[in-house]
Order: sequence, then structure tokens, then C-alpha cells
Amino acid sequence: IAVGVVIMWAVVYSMYADPLRAEPPSIAERDDLTKRESGVTPSSPMRLRMESFINEQQKHIVQTLETLDPDHRFRLDSWTRPGGGGGVSCVLQEGEVFEKAGVNTSTVYGTLPRPAIQKMRVNHKALDPDVESLEFFAAGLSCVLHPRNPNAPTVHFNYRYFETMDERGECNAWWFGGGTDLTPSYLYDEDVIHFHRTIKEACDKHDRAYFPRFKQWCDKYFHIPHRGESRGVGGIFFDDLDEQEKDQEQLFSFVKDCLLAFLPSYLPLVEKRKEMPFTEKEKEWQQLRRGRYVEFNLVHDRGTAFGLNTPSARVESILMSLPLTARWQYMHEAEKGSREERLLKVLKEPRDWV
Amino acid sequence: IAVGVVIMWAVVYSMYADPLRAEPPSIAERDDLTKRESGVTPSSPMRLRMESFINEQQKHIVQTLETLDPDHRFRLDSWTRPGGGGGVSCVLQEGEVFEKAGVNTSTVYGTLPRPAIQKMRVNHKALDPDVESLEFFAAGLSCVLHPRNPNAPTVHFNYRYFETMDERGECNAWWFGGGTDLTPSYLYDEDVIHFHRTIKEACDKHDRAYFPRFKQWCDKYFHIPHRGESRGVGGIFFDDLDEQEKDQEQLFSFVKDCLLAFLPSYLPLVEKRKEMPFTEKEKEWQQLRRGRYVEFNLVHDRGTAFGLNTPSARVESILMSLPLTARWQYMHEAEKGSREERLLKVLKEPRDWV
Repeated sequence: IAVGVVIMWAVVYSMYADPLRAEPPSIAERDDLTKRESGVTPSSPMRLRMESFINEQQKHIVQTLETLDPDHRFRLDSWTRPGGGGGVSCVLQEGEVFEKAGVNTSTVYGTLPRPAIQKMRVNHKALDPDVESLEFFAAGLSCVLHPRNPNAPTVHFNYRYFETMDERGECNAWWFGGGTDLTPSYLYDEDVIHFHRTIKEACDKHDRAYFPRFKQWCDKYFHIPHRGESRGVGGIFFDDLDEQEKDQEQLFSFVKDCLLAFLPSYLPLVEKRKEMPFTEKEKEWQQLRRGRYVEFNLVHDRGTAFGLNTPSARVESILMSLPLTARWQYMHEAEKGSREERLLKVLKEPRDWV
Repeated sequence: IAVGVVIMWAVVYSMYADPLRAEPPSIAERDDLTKRESGVTPSSPMRLRMESFINEQQKHIVQTLETLDPDHRFRLDSWTRPGGGGGVSCVLQEGEVFEKAGVNTSTVYGTLPRPAIQKMRVNHKALDPDVESLEFFAAGLSCVLHPRNPNAPTVHFNYRYFETMDERGECNAWWFGGGTDLTPSYLYDEDVIHFHRTIKEACDKHDRAYFPRFKQWCDKYFHIPHRGESRGVGGIFFDDLDEQEKDQEQLFSFVKDCLLAFLPSYLPLVEKRKEMPFTEKEKEWQQLRRGRYVEFNLVHDRGTAFGLNTPSARVESILMSLPLTARWQYMHEAEKGSREERLLKVLKEPRDWV
């Protein structure tokens, strides 16, 4: 084994080190080599397994969504980060079914400064408090779908993995986060129930307490304080799930099942609604709801804020979550007894759907 | 005089004090009484003079804008704040000339907690550092006009006055802030030059250093870091102008002249452009630029953030600044050599126009 390691190091050096550079290869460079040489297997480090899983799921989801609208293809943009990592953004605009649809992976290798470590220690005691900086890795898959038909709901999911590493790339602290939420313009109870039931089944396989706990977290997270209403009607949200919650394998398996539940939770809804007739007034209401979506994402969403504040972030990928078009109408009021008013009531008082 | 004061206090008590309430009337209540009893004169406290000036200017601006589009009237909403103060929002939507136009006054009487006082002391040494809280007053006039025609620029202005008071309502520290900026979708150099020249004339009457200094401050303030571009092509911006700058009368006179320069700086532009023919593609470009306007206002504008975080704020008045409609298109690129590309270049490198 020792010999193998020496050879591998020699290979790493021959690939990356230029004669003027004395530093050893970065963790990102070594991970790239590992992937190329030995592939990713169940015994690989979790960061490579998560990355490989989200890449594979991205392809699968994009392909499946394309079958809904064979005349429109996702545009694919691959990008790399100077410090290590990168991603693939798949975006479809002005399709038949989706006004805008984005399915993005992103992977970051970076360095956490001391203040960021101190903050994270609140939730993760495994983090070493006595270091000036720590290497970290983050990988996630995000998806936002804004359908054209106002009867079909907007949906979002994001699943991510985060870890810190010592300088040899050994994992130090790690956690998973993510969730999915549904944002209809018009409420079809059976759709919302189906969405929640499918997610609940995925959660229940792992822990019966997860769904109620993460549904509540979702209602709290996707709240727009200045409007006194939620962005959508619910789903699940969780963050900072680490070894204090369950072991790494169990949590990875949970996150995988959540992600695998996405298409079954959402696809039937858009299939059922995408060709329903609608009026111009209904389209306008959808545009107003899109305005609220923009308000949440730009004013309150911590993920968007984090992204926009990351140096050399790919802004076009972060803001793919915004709808193609949105509307703000001063003092708009829903008619008494209307379907619009019914939605607002539910957004003001989140409901348990299953 | 002493007798007069005693009588006045008796009147105040008889008006506001109910038999179960032992506290003296608030500063807001006493100010209301003063205004009703004696009106506002050049010897009134500055807060009343500023309030009276912005109320009068709001009426004048709304009336003038209505002459541009006689078939559409501004909707007027008067509101009061529980703690004292209130405002008038005048909004016109889906007019012939303006897609959305808002001209709002707002007046706040409130209490600054110690941390807020500490922060403000950085710029205002007159603030007493040894108190637990301070009464404050703020009054401002804001205006945002989004014309329908993509050849006519969006414009914004805000002029405001802030003071802190002891419990008898005597002014302690005070300052003025404000500015105006122009956001065209298509660049007509002569329009931008006219806008800047008019503001510069108003500034020059008070201090030849003001215009260059406040133009630079404007370019810095209305910058969208995540896009590496400015919201618009410039104007002026200033804040915290207090006795370290000039005396209160001089600064009030400066702010009045800035505000009075607004209609002459902007009206000729919209009159010239409002009936120009335009294509659907030009309208779409305007909508994309409106998307950037939303990004600035919701992500970076300190005024909007302050408003949305103020308890019992009137959210509809704060967000009247958002356009009626906006658009986000993934990876939109302006054509080489196009008018769209020319605008982007100027937004990336702010220019001196006069």
C-alpha cells in the first residue's frame, strides 16, 4: 500500500506541479485524480459519493423533464471555480411547459476563515476551535421549475453536503442539508396532498419524526416576514444534520431518498395541469405570486445571499431561481371568496397536508 | 409668553389626556397641536418645516405628472403610524405614460435604542452617548417613476430629514440626506446631460464642491456588486449632512433646491420620449433592466431594508418602488455594437456627464 501511495503521489506531482511551484497539489486536485484513476465507489470519501450522486441525478431529472416538452431542450453550461470545484447549470427558458426551469449542480473547494468556523461551531462541536482556517468542501443540487400554466405549481428543491478537512483531505466535520417546497398560484388540495405524501413516505423510511419536524422547519424557513405570509404551501427543510442526528451512511441514504422522491412528488402535478385552460386574469395572478417569490429569494433566502456574497460566484446560476417574469401591483387585493383569497389564507396560516 | 405656554399645555392635556392616563402628551401629539394652532412658519422647528415642505411638493409633483396623462389619476392613500407620524402614498398604475409612478411622504416619530444611537454617533458627534434611548423624528419624500416607453428613463428621488430630540421635543442632533438618480434602458446622451446639468445648477448655488462629490457618492451607492454594474447612469446622493457640513438653514435651502430641480431635470425627458415608437424587443430589454432595478432595491438598497425591518411599516408604500413588471433571462447577452451593449458599458464604468 505504501508503495502505491508513493506512486500515486508521484503521478499527482507529474500532473499538476509545474517546475516553479513548490506546493503540494490541492485537495481538489487530488480528488480529481482519485475520480479519474479509481472512480467513485461506496468506499470513497463521502464528498465524492455525494458529488457523483448529484451529477447522476441532475442528468436523470433533466432528461425526464425534457420528455414533457420534446421541442425544448435544456441549455447546459459547465463552469469551473478558480480555487477548485465548479458545476453544471442546465436551464430551459420559454418552453411549452416551463417558462423557466433550472437544474444546477455546484461543488466548491475553499477555505473557511476563523470567524466562519466560530459561527459553524454553534451547530457542529466537531469543528476544531483552535485553528486560523479550515479547508472545506460543499456540493449540492438545486432545482427550480416555474411552469407556464398558472394551475401548475412552481417547485424547488436543494440537497447539499458540506464538510471540513485537514490539509491531507481527511474529513473533520460534515453535515447534510436540503429540502423541497411547493409554490402554487392556485390551490388544488389533491396536488398539495400528493406532494407532501410522497415526501413523507421518503422520510418515514428513515425516521417517523423527520417529516413533521422538517415540514415545520420548511414553513418557518420559507416565511416572508414583511408580507406575513409563506412563499409556498410547504414541503420539507432541514440543515446541519450531522453525527449528532444519525451516522453519515444513514443520513446520506435519507438525502438520497428525498432526492429520489422529487420526480414522483412533482411530475404528476405538472402533467395534470400543464394543458388546463386559463384566463389572462389567472396569468396575472401567477405573475403577482412570482413577485413574492422574487421578494423571498432576494430579501430573505440565506442560500441566495450566501451565493451572491461568495467571491467569483456564478451569478447567472444562482439567480436562475428567479422567474422569467414577475409583477408588483400596488395594493392588489384578492376578491372575497375567490380562489386567490383562499390561497392567501393558506399562505398566512400554514397547514398540515397529510 | 409663560402664560401662553401654560394655556397651551392645558389645551394639550384636555385634547389628549384621558382621565386614566397619567403620561404627558407625546412629541408627535404636541407637534400636531402646534401645526393646528399656529401653522408652520419659518420660525417653527425644522421638523415641521421639512414636513410641510415635502407635503406641499408632493401635491405639486403629483398634479404636474397628472397633466402628462389626463386620463389617469394617482390613487391617494393616507395612513398613520400607531406611535406617531404617518404618510400619504400617491400611486398611479398602468397609465398611458407611466407603468407605475409613486410619490410618497412619510413621517416617523419613534425611539432609538442604545445600539442604534452608538451606530449613528460615528457620523454625528452631537448625539449624547450616555442615554439608554432617544426620541427621533424622520420625514421624507420619495418618488419612483417607471415610464411605459423604453426610450423614457426610470427616475428616482428621495429627500429626507432626521433629528433626535429630548423629551420636551427640543432638537438634539439632526441631518439631511437624499438624492436622485436616472435609470435609462436606452441611452440618450442629451437626456442624461440635461438631467445632470439641472441638478448641478441646483448644487452649484450652494457649494461648487457638492455636485462632483455627490455624483461620485451616487455612483458608489447605486452599485450592484454581484452584477458589477450600476443601477443607473448617475445623479446625486448624500447622507448625514449636519452642522459639520453647513448650518441647518443652509442645508435646508440646499435640499429644497434639489427637490425643486426634480421636475425641470426629468419632465422634459419623459415628454420627449413618451410617444416614440418602440419594438417588442426593446420592451423586453426594458423588462430585463427592470429586473436589475428589483435586484438593487431588494438586495442592496439600505432604505428598502430599513423600511422592511421597521415594525408596523407600510410595506405597500415601501415596495411601490418596484416596477409593475420585470424579467430575468438566464445568460442574456447584448449584441455586439448594439444600443443595449452601449448602455451596459456605461453602467460598468460610470461617466461624468457634465
